[in-house]
Amino acid sequence: MRKKKRQNNALRPVSIERNFQPHAAGSILFKMGNTHVICSITVEDGVPSFLQDSGQGWITAEYGMLPCSTNSRMGREAVRGRSGRTYEIQRLIGRSLRMMVDLNKLGEITLRVDCDVLNADGGTRTASITGAALVLADVLRSLREQGKIGKTDILPLAAISAGIVDGEAMLDLDYGEDSRADADANFVMAGNGRLVELQCTAEGRPISRSEFEQLTELAWKGVSELLHLWSKKV
Amino acid sequence: MRKKKRQNNALRPVSIERNFQPHAAGSILFKMGNTHVICSITVEDGVPSFLQDSGQGWITAEYGMLPCSTNSRMGREAVRGRSGRTYEIQRLIGRSLRMMVDLNKLGEITLRVDCDVLNADGGTRTASITGAALVLADVLRSLREQGKIGKTDILPLAAISAGIVDGEAMLDLDYGEDSRADADANFVMAGNGRLVELQCTAEGRPISRSEFEQLTELAWKGVSELLHLWSKKV
Amino acid sequence: MRKKKRQNNALRPVSIERNFQPHAAGSILFKMGNTHVICSITVEDGVPSFLQDSGQGWITAEYGMLPCSTNSRMGREAVRGRSGRTYEIQRLIGRSLRMMVDLNKLGEITLRVDCDVLNADGGTRTASITGAALVLADVLRSLREQGKIGKTDILPLAAISAGIVDGEAMLDLDYGEDSRADADANFVMAGNGRLVELQCTAEGRPISRSEFEQLTELAWKGVSELLHLWSKKV
Amino acid sequence: MRKKKRQNNALRPVSIERNFQPHAAGSILFKMGNTHVICSITVEDGVPSFLQDSGQGWITAEYGMLPCSTNSRMGREAVRGRSGRTYEIQRLIGRSLRMMVDLNKLGEITLRVDCDVLNADGGTRTASITGAALVLADVLRSLREQGKIGKTDILPLAAISAGIVDGEAMLDLDYGEDSRADADANFVMAGNGRLVELQCTAEGRPISRSEFEQLTELAWKGVSELLHLWSKKV
Amino acid sequence: MRKKKRQNNALRPVSIERNFQPHAAGSILFKMGNTHVICSITVEDGVPSFLQDSGQGWITAEYGMLPCSTNSRMGREAVRGRSGRTYEIQRLIGRSLRMMVDLNKLGEITLRVDCDVLNADGGTRTASITGAALVLADVLRSLREQGKIGKTDILPLAAISAGIVDGEAMLDLDYGEDSRADADANFVMAGNGRLVELQCTAEGRPISRSEFEQLTELAWKGVSELLHLWSKKV
Amino acid sequence: MRKKKRQNNALRPVSIERNFQPHAAGSILFKMGNTHVICSITVEDGVPSFLQDSGQGWITAEYGMLPCSTNSRMGREAVRGRSGRTYEIQRLIGRSLRMMVDLNKLGEITLRVDCDVLNADGGTRTASITGAALVLADVLRSLREQGKIGKTDILPLAAISAGIVDGEAMLDLDYGEDSRADADANFVMAGNGRLVELQCTAEGRPISRSEFEQLTELAWKGVSELLHLWSKKV
Repeated sequence: MRKKKRQNNALRPVSIERNFQPHAAGSILFKMGNTHVICSITVEDGVPSFLQDSGQGWITAEYGMLPCSTNSRMGREAVRGRSGRTYEIQRLIGRSLRMMVDLNKLGEITLRVDCDVLNADGGTRTASITGAALVLADVLRSLREQGKIGKTDILPLAAISAGIVDGEAMLDLDYGEDSRADADANFVMAGNGRLVELQCTAEGRPISRSEFEQLTELAWKGVSELLHLWSKKV
Repeated sequence: MRKKKRQNNALRPVSIERNFQPHAAGSILFKMGNTHVICSITVEDGVPSFLQDSGQGWITAEYGMLPCSTNSRMGREAVRGRSGRTYEIQRLIGRSLRMMVDLNKLGEITLRVDCDVLNADGGTRTASITGAALVLADVLRSLREQGKIGKTDILPLAAISAGIVDGEAMLDLDYGEDSRADADANFVMAGNGRLVELQCTAEGRPISRSEFEQLTELAWKGVSELLHLWSKKV
Repeated sequence: MRKKKRQNNALRPVSIERNFQPHAAGSILFKMGNTHVICSITVEDGVPSFLQDSGQGWITAEYGMLPCSTNSRMGREAVRGRSGRTYEIQRLIGRSLRMMVDLNKLGEITLRVDCDVLNADGGTRTASITGAALVLADVLRSLREQGKIGKTDILPLAAISAGIVDGEAMLDLDYGEDSRADADANFVMAGNGRLVELQCTAEGRPISRSEFEQLTELAWKGVSELLHLWSKKV
Repeated sequence: MRKKKRQNNALRPVSIERNFQPHAAGSILFKMGNTHVICSITVEDGVPSFLQDSGQGWITAEYGMLPCSTNSRMGREAVRGRSGRTYEIQRLIGRSLRMMVDLNKLGEITLRVDCDVLNADGGTRTASITGAALVLADVLRSLREQGKIGKTDILPLAAISAGIVDGEAMLDLDYGEDSRADADANFVMAGNGRLVELQCTAEGRPISRSEFEQLTELAWKGVSELLHLWSKKV
Repeated sequence: MRKKKRQNNALRPVSIERNFQPHAAGSILFKMGNTHVICSITVEDGVPSFLQDSGQGWITAEYGMLPCSTNSRMGREAVRGRSGRTYEIQRLIGRSLRMMVDLNKLGEITLRVDCDVLNADGGTRTASITGAALVLADVLRSLREQGKIGKTDILPLAAISAGIVDGEAMLDLDYGEDSRADADANFVMAGNGRLVELQCTAEGRPISRSEFEQLTELAWKGVSELLHLWSKKV
Repeated sequence: MRKKKRQNNALRPVSIERNFQPHAAGSILFKMGNTHVICSITVEDGVPSFLQDSGQGWITAEYGMLPCSTNSRMGREAVRGRSGRTYEIQRLIGRSLRMMVDLNKLGEITLRVDCDVLNADGGTRTASITGAALVLADVLRSLREQGKIGKTDILPLAAISAGIVDGEAMLDLDYGEDSRADADANFVMAGNGRLVELQCTAEGRPISRSEFEQLTELAWKGVSELLHLWSKKV
């Protein structure tokens, strides 16, 4: 049985605290169970060199974990160098968020998203995307209202994990579940029912297509619930 | 229309040249169209520190591109540092290959896989996995025959890309197709019809579930054909 | 006039939230006005090589700032490398905390202190020391009660800044005051009325000995008030 | 008793050899007992980016130790990376020297000060400041005479250490004294009797205010004597 | 006796495969016995900063070894950093090639030469120079024909090793011979009978002038034979 | 005409100051005209890992230039990283010095040679070798007398440059001569008339064999004179 008698298809409790880092253009402390992530956004003039004079904007992300966010202290990346896992996660976050908006409507600005994990209990990358998408929508709306960017739709987006644990398909794995999962998948899905990113990894054994189908169903349910956060006062 | 009138569900021509780097325990020059990758394997005593005294073996991969493998010369990673893309790809290769065998049967040895791209024309990561799986099977069989590792099954494995290009689902994208794809997916699948790794990324727009289904069908067809390489004299 | 009509000799409001990062041996979110710092401690077996086989323990600190903690986003040190300022501050924190206890009574363990700034509004290094001293005392008391370290006194300690701003001596400078100060001093003082560390820097002009005396008086008053935190339930 | 029967309030013998590195704009080999430091200055057009178009000049310092300057060979920082101690010292040297002159009178040039320790016997940072201040004054006077910088006063400056050793306050600690000091302070003081920088560190135990007063008195005496070097032919 | 009954003054078999990396401006797979090197050239607009606005072009080289090119796997320089040996070799290649042409006739372009060793069996640096000189001549001739560079002669160039092994002077050492050589020399010589680079190193003992003379004679013979490659269809 | 009417076959004035860095096992300030180099040696127990348990000793060198040693200030390698030139020079120094003694007689110790250039006016690498060979002989003799190493001969060694400048062969080039040389060679030769290292580089044009012969003659004369330093009280 899962902790706190959670059902296999249930999310952990979610909470949001806005304006957590007031120096940022937008900032959220996003909690999903015991996974706590700060998502903050800075708006900068200019774009990376490969976009210069394109008229197009850019959205990019960096991801970090505080040393005591994990069970055994994780060495600081400023000391030991950034790991492959970090690169992989921040590339995933950035790619996902760039699907939310037509970059051509931004003009040559860069939206820099920082996701920093205060406490880690599984699902830090999906929590980072879900939290960052919310605060990115806040910032984009505000820029649009101020006329600093063009008229553009903002696509609602959320992310969740699912996996095969102890032979059962489960939604939103915590650290203990993730550690013993046979397979683990992360889904980024949009409000229009479409797929943005999908990463599925066999850890213990390859999985069948029917198992994969179950994970997809769970994920779609989870993302739908997370997207309710968008309809609340943002 | 695709180059050389290729059908949407057709692979590019595949060829294998074994023993390309004779100093290695096993070595292949794997060609898939104009994508050419050297896959070589070294066997080392000992395992990384997190496995010491576990009795278990390890399989790990490194990936590189020669400077002139790409259309515009790519700076050497020994000079500019390794990119996030490199970390992501070599983690994917390593994870996939570790699914091929029961690591507990290896004893404390490390199989180090080097995938170096001589020419790049799309699909270098899937070509790396397909080529490396072939040479890994060679090396494992040889070690098993010499009694240096225990009795263990070897799971056949191959990888292929598929994507939505110009509104159509296509198998095995070349560089030009990949550059203009709306979405791009890489599948690693096993001979037993199961899924090992799946990475799907929307580049231009999120995709529908039915589009995703088409990609899965194409990939399964492609992997099945690649697995024919396994039945040939290895 | 200072913000919120603060007197020249007044501290900003102080608050403490314990157990902020539950994975750590001890953890505090320490707030001093708008300067917010997480101070967390990990206990590790073993000591640095220069102390091996000495029977002595060690206390060391690392300091970091989250990217959006500052007015204009500060690049991540994992990306741009650690600055001289960071080295200087974490050396100061470590030296100060090592004065709190007889290291010979610890046995060969290392107490690793992480100070991470969530929001910066002046005085981040003194807030780090004051917060870290509180949580270090918690952890040491707990280790002493469990018999994991020997009997040893714990010296109460706090730190505060003072400076000459607009020709006047002021206690506990915020960022705006610090930016225009003629001179800026950081004091680390112990509960027994003694000096642990003192760093005084002329920014605009060298200062007279009488000005320096005023800073010392203010600091002593400030530290005395901060040490009241120690008498509360710890 | 101190080496060579030195009194507690006595400096070690001081000597200066000008023009030690003739390629520099100014260069001194400064000796204080067995502590020998080369201080050389280069004048460069332009300023760091944070000062561009400000019309203001800049003074910055780098500090290094030759590998065989210390009792047991110190690894080269080009090999092992720069230490926190190095950053701390060169920041102190730079800050101190910038107090000597009105940077607005320099125009957009950078004076780059290199302090390299040939032999170390305690007090290398204060010797670096005292030597560098002398050669900086030479270079500034020369630039002023050539009309390359504006009319500006040059503030005489010197630095010295003092500490509590074996229960007594002593001036200008050598390496052996420094190693066993209970507390150690470095003072940078100006010719006008004012304080530029002060760093006081308890090594063995926190010190009382009266002990701190004694260190201040000793330092002031030491700096006064060092400033006599300025009245000699410069 | 040498492997395959090779005479002391005989080269190993040489072969050339042009257009090995089609993305490059010119590319050769050069084989000298079991030493196999890819030499590829990229043409870039612009020159390094020290040549800007000089009207002069530049030729520079980078050298690398694939991990499995050597008997025991060589760690990737992107992981362990570039070695002193690598710097030394690529500086030698670049200097040698710059003697082939009047850089003033190139205009401000950079010819970037990549030499990557697929298999190493002694003489990789001389094989790199011989192969790179051939492909550089191809590229220069092509640029000259297209009028992209000025009229300029191209000096034919080749390189070979010679050494004292088992008391005898031998040409073109393989890895086994090189490992036990008393002295080893690398010669870069031009078609006009002149010397471009010479590096002679005693490994086991200093050598006499008459021994050195023998190495020079062998090298000249070897280079003359290698220069026959130039008269073939290039 | 050369500076100070120096003959083409004349060395610049040479001087030696022993015991320049008293913390070292041996130390010389070696001056050759305006090229001034500190050569210091440290003796360490143990050898690099590739020699462990071989019973053999090791001699290795590091080379550095102080920032103001050159005409325009050279950035510190601790800041900008070590250059290829530095690696090349210190490898040359180390290889040359290892020819002086039978390493098997040393036991498992490492002699670490530091060559640091105070002032550079051409020929810093040959001055480093000549100076380091003298101090190495001092240290080896002393270790031999104390019985810390076995009985072993010490081969006298010196190094000098020669080059073709303005069409003439000249010995011991200064910086100005070196800058305009057509070719430049560095010779390391032993007291027994044999060659230890030779590096000859065409800078402006390839040179003929007769020109190379002239350089060899000059070098041999120069080294013979430098070896007179060895017969003086060492």
